[in-house]
Amino acid sequence: MKKSVLALSVSALLLTACNDNSPNVVEVVKEVEVIKEVPVTPTPVTSVKNVILMIGDGMGPQQVGLLEDYARRAPNSTYNGKGNLTALSKLADNGHLGLALNQPYGATSGKLVVDSACSATQLATGKASGSEMIGLDEQGFIVETILEKAKKAGKATGLVSDTRITHATPAAFAAHQAHRSLEGAIAVELVTSGSVDVLLSGGAREFVPADIKTNTAAQQAIEALGAAPSVYKKSKRKDSRNLLVEAKEQHGYSLAFDKTQLANSDATKLLGLFANSGMADAIAYKACSANNSCTEPSLKEMTVKALDILAKDPDGFFLMVEGGQIDWAGHANDAGWMLNELLKFDEAVEAVYQWVKDRNDTLVVVTADHETGSFGFSYSRKDLQEGKDLPGDGMHGAQYKPNFNFGNLSNLDMLYKQTGTFFNMMDAANANWDFASATASDWMNAINKYSEYKVNIDQAAKVGEREVNDYYAPDHSYQSATMVPKFEDFKEFYVYADEDHTGKIARALAADQNVVWGTGTHTAAPVPVYAFGPEGVTKAFSTMQHHTDLANKMMVALGVAE
Amino acid sequence: MKKSVLALSVSALLLTACNDNSPNVVEVVKEVEVIKEVPVTPTPVTSVKNVILMIGDGMGPQQVGLLEDYARRAPNSTYNGKGNLTALSKLADNGHLGLALNQPYGATSGKLVVDSACSATQLATGKASGSEMIGLDEQGFIVETILEKAKKAGKATGLVSDTRITHATPAAFAAHQAHRSLEGAIAVELVTSGSVDVLLSGGAREFVPADIKTNTAAQQAIEALGAAPSVYKKSKRKDSRNLLVEAKEQHGYSLAFDKTQLANSDATKLLGLFANSGMADAIAYKACSANNSCTEPSLKEMTVKALDILAKDPDGFFLMVEGGQIDWAGHANDAGWMLNELLKFDEAVEAVYQWVKDRNDTLVVVTADHETGSFGFSYSRKDLQEGKDLPGDGMHGAQYKPNFNFGNLSNLDMLYKQTGTFFNMMDAANANWDFASATASDWMNAINKYSEYKVNIDQAAKVGEREVNDYYAPDHSYQSATMVPKFEDFKEFYVYADEDHTGKIARALAADQNVVWGTGTHTAAPVPVYAFGPEGVTKAFSTMQHHTDLANKMMVALGVAE
Repeated sequence: MKKSVLALSVSALLLTACNDNSPNVVEVVKEVEVIKEVPVTPTPVTSVKNVILMIGDGMGPQQVGLLEDYARRAPNSTYNGKGNLTALSKLADNGHLGLALNQPYGATSGKLVVDSACSATQLATGKASGSEMIGLDEQGFIVETILEKAKKAGKATGLVSDTRITHATPAAFAAHQAHRSLEGAIAVELVTSGSVDVLLSGGAREFVPADIKTNTAAQQAIEALGAAPSVYKKSKRKDSRNLLVEAKEQHGYSLAFDKTQLANSDATKLLGLFANSGMADAIAYKACSANNSCTEPSLKEMTVKALDILAKDPDGFFLMVEGGQIDWAGHANDAGWMLNELLKFDEAVEAVYQWVKDRNDTLVVVTADHETGSFGFSYSRKDLQEGKDLPGDGMHGAQYKPNFNFGNLSNLDMLYKQTGTFFNMMDAANANWDFASATASDWMNAINKYSEYKVNIDQAAKVGEREVNDYYAPDHSYQSATMVPKFEDFKEFYVYADEDHTGKIARALAADQNVVWGTGTHTAAPVPVYAFGPEGVTKAFSTMQHHTDLANKMMVALGVAE
Repeated sequence: MKKSVLALSVSALLLTACNDNSPNVVEVVKEVEVIKEVPVTPTPVTSVKNVILMIGDGMGPQQVGLLEDYARRAPNSTYNGKGNLTALSKLADNGHLGLALNQPYGATSGKLVVDSACSATQLATGKASGSEMIGLDEQGFIVETILEKAKKAGKATGLVSDTRITHATPAAFAAHQAHRSLEGAIAVELVTSGSVDVLLSGGAREFVPADIKTNTAAQQAIEALGAAPSVYKKSKRKDSRNLLVEAKEQHGYSLAFDKTQLANSDATKLLGLFANSGMADAIAYKACSANNSCTEPSLKEMTVKALDILAKDPDGFFLMVEGGQIDWAGHANDAGWMLNELLKFDEAVEAVYQWVKDRNDTLVVVTADHETGSFGFSYSRKDLQEGKDLPGDGMHGAQYKPNFNFGNLSNLDMLYKQTGTFFNMMDAANANWDFASATASDWMNAINKYSEYKVNIDQAAKVGEREVNDYYAPDHSYQSATMVPKFEDFKEFYVYADEDHTGKIARALAADQNVVWGTGTHTAAPVPVYAFGPEGVTKAFSTMQHHTDLANKMMVALGVAE
């Protein structure tokens, strides 16, 4: 069709050129206008200089739904006055949305459900990996990651997480280990490999010598680098290496240990470790933000700093940002904490959106590694509503009286207002986690201290129930516990021993929250994929793909595919 | 860039026209070639003649994940040899994928979780509706649906479902009632309104007089129309209307009551009712297909027939097809049944894909009304795997020994092979559903008759546990039961009294299946949206939208928006 319009206009022009005739000239003008109206495709941009991958750990479609429900529908949504639009929705509205399967995809190690290490490895490499592996393929061979390929191509690289920098998700982009638990070895790789320019997270305990508690010389050396005792206080290393000193003296890293040091840094190679283990949770962050007392940088602040540094490289960059505690809240079956983590993550996404929105050289992919908890709002038979008259002509005299409790929107505000995580409640129930000694009253007071929803003494008594471990295994990280919280149903899916009293708290609150959970571990739900950037790059993400496909699409876009 | 090339070629042509000079002519040819190389956008097609909306009831992202896991990874996948590609994946790969929030969206009736009636109403009208309402807005006013608008615009219309034609999802597209339970009134509307040309489903019990069991004259009249006693055997009407006779004599419908009659019909206005209540489940369908003994048409066959009929209208059509028993399997927490329902639905999607793929005038939207069950594959602490040596250079002597059971792919085959639904098991445990009398042995034999996974007597005993109903309500459809199956956790979310022994069966099988469930009702998970058709129409679906947005996008595309 366009081509015939074009031909027509050309004929008219031919005629005019040889024939100075007014009416014909008018005709020509009309035809030229037609040409102008024809949309001409700009050359599609199919590659980018920079890739920013943001992983909401455990952020399945259900979790994203919780965030969107809150933003759009909570009576007191913090998005009120901002069009009730999450940053994730801005990416989707101006980019593309898809879904990603995430199971271990090996021919021999293939399974139904993925852990964060295997998942991040598959996302980082495009290759099938085995459960709990870091940066290896399913046969255990080392595989180059997108971060390492970017570095080889001369680009700057960065990893940001609000967990530990040695935790599964960031680790899988720049380390290669048989098991995710080898965090000491991962720390060595991160510092010595030279593949990562910017590392911002928690996890200092993997970087300080084993005897740090008593080694005053090491303490002094670390304090001289700027770290407070709260950061270096404990070590999980089994050797005497001081990776902080090594990072600075042998590998050219500047170091930062708090929010102020991070803000003031002008380094181009930066190791920032802001907590001994995991960084502050989102409820603590909400509290310290409110009175401006935060000492750790937020996920957003780390992200912005990483962008500032990496963008200085004229060759471009690869950055991975993890919102890692969405997953922790999911394992804990803690909907209030999870909502706050989603808000913290979305704040970082907003910063990235603002940084990228007027550019055409950067691909942003936001996804999850897997879903955690089989979370859902759900309808129940508790607190059924009374019948109500409605004015509509379709009621024919009937009252409006649904059969079930479909959940009030005020739940969204109440979840948001939770003042401590379920782990804070456990600490309050018994500071030493001696839960055999915790009474129903201890549990009741602990839960009611932090939750907007209150439990009575009978509900609290059930939270404290324990039983002999049916799956006792003496050498197992978790199943070496002889007594565990007592679960009647789906007990095989509560695998973390004492920590799973959180799942018992969830059960006590569930009916009032209109919230259900299926598991204390992960599920195989396909996860959302938000792709924002040049249309020619992002449109391929609007499908049902596997994580390994995501990796390959990102590598192609960045020009580092094999 | 393109525009300057265009201008250049025009100048060259001007020169040529007045000057018969060979070299210039050559130049012109070169310029014309340049023009040919310029990609010129075809006029984007932004409207369509036909819309086909397919609703997988209860088909959240988790359910789609199950289907994809099966198709792509099951050792004996029925998609082996077909590229392991589901029809849903073909739509996504060649169209767009998005997500849809689905909660009741009213300013005053807004809730967290939706039922199928409210959901279908929102999908059909683009307006917020109240819980359990059919074709009304949240104030109870009658709202015109996309189907009714299409009919007004002179298009043909159809509704297909494997449940009952009076069930919530089909009903909401062509009826207007205060509550979904008013199926008798819905049947009257469907037959008398003149808005639906093709109605294919089950639910004959709503179309026959209340006294059908004893009314031999009515029986003979119905048999004369072609129906067998199995179809007309029971009535749920409260009056003496024979809507089958009315449909034929007063409203011009041809009638069909079995697979053969449907195949042989050449009507353009057709009411096909193939079961007294719900149609055959997918496991029964799999069995009758295997020996070619099906008497009911399949969802695919009804869909193809509807397309055949509706496509005869030169003005185009609107067709809604529901795979309604995915939801029933979800409520039953029955993963094997659910997988089979997903396969049955995907077979219908494949037929639609084949019908549409070479056209440019039809929009296909496949979505769900909500998720059911909070389903997931999940990892557990049962049956941990032994350590294994791997050849890879990244193992450094360590064995491959994950901490948890991430689920074998063989589970996918075992779920597929289930030979009866959990309701079949309940029937087998006690034919009269007198579960107070069912013994542990009854339950064990019943479950083991149909499941590839076997339970022992202790597991079976738990399935039969019952308790006093804590939520007893004498006038409630379900809570009028005094005794109900006993649930320890999330009991408020098991709302269907005796039927919920299915959820107890699920708990007995869960650990072996690596399957978890959070609820016996629905969740608020955003649901997948597949959009296939002209790119100018489908690209708008690749975002995070609400069901009311979906309705409005479909109405705009069909040219029937207000």
